[in-house]
Amino acid sequence: MTSTFLEQRGAEMYSLAQKLWSYPRSLTGDGVRSTLVELSLVISGLQMHEIASGTKVGDWEVPMEWNLKFARLTAPDGTVICDTRENNLHVLGYSIPFRGKVSLPELESHLYSLPDQPSAIPYVTSYYERRWGFCMSHDVRTSLQPGEYGVEIDTSLQQGFLTYADLVLPGQLEDEILVSTYICHPSMANNELSGPVVTTELIKYLSSQVDRRYTYRFVFAPETIGAIVYLHKHLKHLKKYVKAGFVITCVGDNRTHSLLPTRDGVHEVDLIARHVLRFIDPKFKEYSWADRGSDERQYSAPLVGLPMVSMMRSKYWEYPEYHTSLDDLVNVVSPAGLAGGFEAIRQAVDILERNVRPLTTVIGEPMLGKRGLYGTLGASRYSTTPQTLLDVWSYCDGSRTAFEIAEVLQMRFEDVINLIELLKEHDLVKTSPAQLS
Amino acid sequence: MTSTFLEQRGAEMYSLAQKLWSYPRSLTGDGVRSTLVELSLVISGLQMHEIASGTKVGDWEVPMEWNLKFARLTAPDGTVICDTRENNLHVLGYSIPFRGKVSLPELESHLYSLPDQPSAIPYVTSYYERRWGFCMSHDVRTSLQPGEYGVEIDTSLQQGFLTYADLVLPGQLEDEILVSTYICHPSMANNELSGPVVTTELIKYLSSQVDRRYTYRFVFAPETIGAIVYLHKHLKHLKKYVKAGFVITCVGDNRTHSLLPTRDGVHEVDLIARHVLRFIDPKFKEYSWADRGSDERQYSAPLVGLPMVSMMRSKYWEYPEYHTSLDDLVNVVSPAGLAGGFEAIRQAVDILERNVRPLTTVIGEPMLGKRGLYGTLGASRYSTTPQTLLDVWSYCDGSRTAFEIAEVLQMRFEDVINLIELLKEHDLVKTSPAQLS
Amino acid sequence: MTSTFLEQRGAEMYSLAQKLWSYPRSLTGDGVRSTLVELSLVISGLQMHEIASGTKVGDWEVPMEWNLKFARLTAPDGTVICDTRENNLHVLGYSIPFRGKVSLPELESHLYSLPDQPSAIPYVTSYYERRWGFCMSHDVRTSLQPGEYGVEIDTSLQQGFLTYADLVLPGQLEDEILVSTYICHPSMANNELSGPVVTTELIKYLSSQVDRRYTYRFVFAPETIGAIVYLHKHLKHLKKYVKAGFVITCVGDNRTHSLLPTRDGVHEVDLIARHVLRFIDPKFKEYSWADRGSDERQYSAPLVGLPMVSMMRSKYWEYPEYHTSLDDLVNVVSPAGLAGGFEAIRQAVDILERNVRPLTTVIGEPMLGKRGLYGTLGASRYSTTPQTLLDVWSYCDGSRTAFEIAEVLQMRFEDVINLIELLKEHDLVKTSPAQLS
Repeated sequence: MTSTFLEQRGAEMYSLAQKLWSYPRSLTGDGVRSTLVELSLVISGLQMHEIASGTKVGDWEVPMEWNLKFARLTAPDGTVICDTRENNLHVLGYSIPFRGKVSLPELESHLYSLPDQPSAIPYVTSYYERRWGFCMSHDVRTSLQPGEYGVEIDTSLQQGFLTYADLVLPGQLEDEILVSTYICHPSMANNELSGPVVTTELIKYLSSQVDRRYTYRFVFAPETIGAIVYLHKHLKHLKKYVKAGFVITCVGDNRTHSLLPTRDGVHEVDLIARHVLRFIDPKFKEYSWADRGSDERQYSAPLVGLPMVSMMRSKYWEYPEYHTSLDDLVNVVSPAGLAGGFEAIRQAVDILERNVRPLTTVIGEPMLGKRGLYGTLGASRYSTTPQTLLDVWSYCDGSRTAFEIAEVLQMRFEDVINLIELLKEHDLVKTSPAQLS
Repeated sequence: MTSTFLEQRGAEMYSLAQKLWSYPRSLTGDGVRSTLVELSLVISGLQMHEIASGTKVGDWEVPMEWNLKFARLTAPDGTVICDTRENNLHVLGYSIPFRGKVSLPELESHLYSLPDQPSAIPYVTSYYERRWGFCMSHDVRTSLQPGEYGVEIDTSLQQGFLTYADLVLPGQLEDEILVSTYICHPSMANNELSGPVVTTELIKYLSSQVDRRYTYRFVFAPETIGAIVYLHKHLKHLKKYVKAGFVITCVGDNRTHSLLPTRDGVHEVDLIARHVLRFIDPKFKEYSWADRGSDERQYSAPLVGLPMVSMMRSKYWEYPEYHTSLDDLVNVVSPAGLAGGFEAIRQAVDILERNVRPLTTVIGEPMLGKRGLYGTLGASRYSTTPQTLLDVWSYCDGSRTAFEIAEVLQMRFEDVINLIELLKEHDLVKTSPAQLS
Repeated sequence: MTSTFLEQRGAEMYSLAQKLWSYPRSLTGDGVRSTLVELSLVISGLQMHEIASGTKVGDWEVPMEWNLKFARLTAPDGTVICDTRENNLHVLGYSIPFRGKVSLPELESHLYSLPDQPSAIPYVTSYYERRWGFCMSHDVRTSLQPGEYGVEIDTSLQQGFLTYADLVLPGQLEDEILVSTYICHPSMANNELSGPVVTTELIKYLSSQVDRRYTYRFVFAPETIGAIVYLHKHLKHLKKYVKAGFVITCVGDNRTHSLLPTRDGVHEVDLIARHVLRFIDPKFKEYSWADRGSDERQYSAPLVGLPMVSMMRSKYWEYPEYHTSLDDLVNVVSPAGLAGGFEAIRQAVDILERNVRPLTTVIGEPMLGKRGLYGTLGASRYSTTPQTLLDVWSYCDGSRTAFEIAEVLQMRFEDVINLIELLKEHDLVKTSPAQLS
């Protein structure tokens, strides 16, 4: 895509991330609902769904619904130490409600901070054990003076629902590409707001493509338990129709590109993702299945086996600001970072959409000269372009797709498909769609 | 082969090249006819064929027939600047006839020379656009003085024929090995005279083999259009019977050995060619399909797909004298160069002819001692030869051919097949022919 | 196994080697019989067999039976130069009987020594040519003075029998693992006493395993001719039932580990042997089929093709003491060396016995927390153990065995199988036996 187009997309995605910044997202609750409602304003047809707390899903069950009104910690002298209205990372995720006075020694067992990143507020949760707590910078924590602290944690943890959303964009084929992202982290930018905003942009891009080949299924759900819920609701359908997919996460900073491949690393979607990233940045970082950490753990689980990749910028766990207040829209995520994250996935989707299997219509090489595709003066060497055109043509025997030809010739897919289109205009090849099997 | 045998072959090939040197070869015309007539004198049964100008062959059509009587350029002072009777590269290939006086500025647009090789006459053609012109050394060109130049180009370009020849040497099998070379270049030695003369020697060699396994089909035709004509005349037959083939070109200088493999590079004929060249020169140069430039472009085109390799000395495009008057029988091609080019291809053909699939006749190792194949004093180590004999024998389980055993053991095919013959003499293996599939 | 267990095994094996040290083993004769009788005392059910001299076995025939009473060489001054009652290497193996006086020059043609290892008595045999001779250190040989020497070689070489033994330990499957070792070398320690004593220990180990999966077949026979006899007696059965095997030789010194793989090197038993040795010593030495030299030459011969490996310590031919009197129980073979040789093979056998194909029982990842397999505080990273458990689980889709999972994850088989057992205890996977095919 042109750089102007990408700049505009980057700016729009960044603006959407700013709007979503302060909703108190968690596995469940109104923070998730508000986020999805906000997304509905720009995603036509997004469907919201709820599933009741306690519902069994495979080996798991849907947790209680958690809501945060606010949480505040006040020092003995009345100074406010933490307030979630300032930064919703200050409360331990899924903290039970608590109100009272506690001494500093007692308070300490409820505090979370990072000694080696003393200015960062860590992101900590306690989904499956009932606790209350505050997260704060280590600098603040070490400045706390003895005395009685005022704790106000106005949360609720009760029977309710887990909320998620999906959208299906139909294509010519019933075969589906699954695109999943998560919406359970409070105010952090690369992990996770970049995920839903890039996914939103991808929906807009694909909605604008009139002749979509594949059906695209988009899922916005809390990580892990949300993916497990979705899997159990749609298992048979997903196993039958999903041919490949993308877990969209950590696509917002402008520092690197990286890939988490499928478990075995040799699915066509792996090859496509590698191809795209290699041409964007030959030094992109490829991880392996051992480094997985998002919803491919569910979608690609044994007996499920959907081939999912993550085409990321800086991967979760691998950048210093990860899971802290430093992962923000100022120093980490930028419009250019989001645009680059979007563009990589868009290029991969384009290969899925445009790939064909070309077959020559002529016996022996085509005569390029009479078509103006080649100079008429036979000097000692071909110029580059006709030779490249013939290189591509020489593989048009039905045994390879355009993508496979691009791989053999170490050419960019887009250049190969354009040459195949040129050959097709001149009736020198015919093509059939090349679909994932 | 013995070095004496090869020296004799080299001298004969060199002598034939000298005879063919000055015929004015091109895509068509009497230069081609005279060349083929000369070859008929040494190739019993060579069949000449003609196809009329304008005949459609696939995407191409047979060009007009071109004949050169002579072409001469005379300076204002009467000095002869170029004369094709001295070197037939002086005329632009397929030059239209022209006679008249032209000023130096006008003449310039009809001259071809190489500023970076100022002593060389370049080889230039204009097959598909009507032009007249002269080729000369850049040294001569830059010495030309203003004035009126006398141009006499006595050529004809008219409805006629394209001429080519073939020969089929029958073998025990209907399966064929295709050997193709081209005859459309005027006085140049490595590219191309080495091709027809080595091919001629190969015909003589194979004619002398009484129990040929394969049928061999030899084609002498102008490059590209000649191969396309041949393909269209024989497509069904070639696709059915040709199991492998050789495009013979650039086999005359003594500087290097090189290989142009098949498109995918993993056909048995690729493995055989690599095997032979590796043992001749471990540092032989292997090119790839992207470097192709001769008639494999037609024979191995999509929907045709004949597996053709070129086992060359210095490859077209890759040596400084290529397509100039410097590619001669003095400084580039030599008897030893031709002998080496011939010998490499001969060894590859010998593997095709002699390869077998051996199967042991005994359970457990053969007892070498009682056959005198092994010392009787059991010291701590085998001497080399019995161990090598048992190494070869240990693969005689029907799963591998002699050639494959040679590859596994990194031994020369000839050494392996000789050991298999020895085992066979002692009734320790039986063999069946191993043919290309 | 624990180091205490291995120390005990090492001591027992060493002690058995000491007992077997001085029997005059050869291809045939009472030295072999006495050795097998000694082994019968510790191997319950060992079956001894005899086959008559002259019996045709494939390309070979069973040799005459050779027995040694004693051989002695006396100097002109009456000093005893060699006496087999001191070291049975002193007589040429299969020496014919001889008694008489010979001059030094005549004697020389009957002496064997090693100039480059002057203190070593070499091991030399003449199975298939009738000779008499003495082996001695080169130091002694060069000190011999002119004069008449007294030769007393009290051997017999006559129609008799070749003796070997076998034992079948039945398992749940009819499929067999063949374990073969040889018993034809006189007093040498690594090659060969380590072989029969480690094999004996392996029999004791496997006898103690109640639920053996495979049937194990153990063979004690003279090298080469014994294996050929065994093959011919049991060919049909072995080809039908033997799925893999071990030739046990050179397993007694503590200097290195090494592997002789199967001919093609890619059988599952190769992968297993490599796996085991890599974890014992990443720098273990892997040889190739070209380096073979023991009974795999027969068992893995063409038309037989049993997949046999040798997991060795210092390989025959590759250590300086090989086939000399220096290969002893003092400087070469040690209890620790034997224990290490035993343990490597035992681990390989354990993989054969324990390997399973695991299949998950849950859709989506298992919930480790509720089972106490995982902390409940979701911080930014998994601790190593739950992640490793999930790594293993993520491959439990029925496409890979536990061994293959270990290979993919580059984990020790034992660690993987233990995690799979843990998953099985928690009903998170079910398993089926994974057998050699």
